[in-house]
Amino acid sequence: MADEVVVLDFWASPFAMRVKLALSEKGITYECKPQDLLNKGPLLLQANPVHKKIPVLIHNGRSICESLIIVRYIDEVWTHVSPLLPSDPYQRSQALFWADYIEKQVYDLGKRVYVAQEDQAEAKEKLIQCLKTLETELGDKPYFGGDGIGFVDVALLPFTTWFYTYERSGNFSIQESCPKLIAWVERCRQKQSVSDALPHPHKIYDFYLLFKEALGVK
Amino acid sequence: MADEVVVLDFWASPFAMRVKLALSEKGITYECKPQDLLNKGPLLLQANPVHKKIPVLIHNGRSICESLIIVRYIDEVWTHVSPLLPSDPYQRSQALFWADYIEKQVYDLGKRVYVAQEDQAEAKEKLIQCLKTLETELGDKPYFGGDGIGFVDVALLPFTTWFYTYERSGNFSIQESCPKLIAWVERCRQKQSVSDALPHPHKIYDFYLLFKEALGVK
Repeated sequence: MADEVVVLDFWASPFAMRVKLALSEKGITYECKPQDLLNKGPLLLQANPVHKKIPVLIHNGRSICESLIIVRYIDEVWTHVSPLLPSDPYQRSQALFWADYIEKQVYDLGKRVYVAQEDQAEAKEKLIQCLKTLETELGDKPYFGGDGIGFVDVALLPFTTWFYTYERSGNFSIQESCPKLIAWVERCRQKQSVSDALPHPHKIYDFYLLFKEALGVK
Repeated sequence: MADEVVVLDFWASPFAMRVKLALSEKGITYECKPQDLLNKGPLLLQANPVHKKIPVLIHNGRSICESLIIVRYIDEVWTHVSPLLPSDPYQRSQALFWADYIEKQVYDLGKRVYVAQEDQAEAKEKLIQCLKTLETELGDKPYFGGDGIGFVDVALLPFTTWFYTYERSGNFSIQESCPKLIAWVERCRQKQSVSDALPHPHKIYDFYLLFKEALGVK
């Protein structure tokens, strides 16, 4: 019996993009079910009763929640192609450390930049510092995962679709501070699995503008 | 060559307790190096340059940071005794989900209770709801891990040493709302590995009182 793989999705969510990117990297066919986040339906509420959030992966009827846990699950179930986490426990702990670092920093700092309240300047500074730290960790490797896309690449890449929105709303250039990180983004986007899974940054910016207008934010 | 296992520790930290509990459960001998958190020394700054926080596990000279990542590492390196995570990917994803839930909720809510500012009542209510959700997840199993202590037990148990402090500072009873969860705490504390690794809740409360006095908080 073929696997039944469903993603409860919202297209602009970097968390949902992680799941689609991991599936794309592994070459797994899946069904995407976009969710209305302003009016959550019974499928989402049943599949993620604790957090009531996307993304959810439903694999042969069983739900897995929280994007990094889902990516890890995907890596453990479909082991035969494109391993995302290293097999050595120490190397693996380091990949998990950096993914956790991204999880704790990038979304919140990015949001504080594009929501643009009185702490925007501080958030911008911290975001740049955080991205520089990640650039140092990347070093001269083509990918965080080494020669191929790994767990840390999957954790971070989705947020790069929001970089243009951070830059436009904060009036600054990430490229200027982190040229090697931006070269990494461009390298990744040349891969079919990445361009299939991630939307264009301009589409995210259009979404942000609409969203801002809907909320009546300046 | 015997393994050299060092924990950079602070005795009252629930995050550090997780690491000591996992090592204790596995029967691993380790050296505990208490850290001065008000005046961080070169060992800690070198071992955890990104977060500059305890706990750090130093295993044969290599540092691993972030408590849940350390516990996972311990489980993966010392596989021969007391497995903490299930081997099945789905069951494992569920254990990781609940550990992540604890990570995101318990510390912050508990702190909002004992720091006792204007949002204390709301935090108390949310903490109880969170512990009830965990009690439901425990169900009729003796441990979250089933018949033995597992990853979720290791994630949550250290916070139970702070329960008495939450209760005294918030003037409420966790036992009253979550009797089965408290029965689980007592069941766990009867195990040698747990009583070796965790301090007595009254000792934590004394620490909290001293700390409060030092900060001049009412």
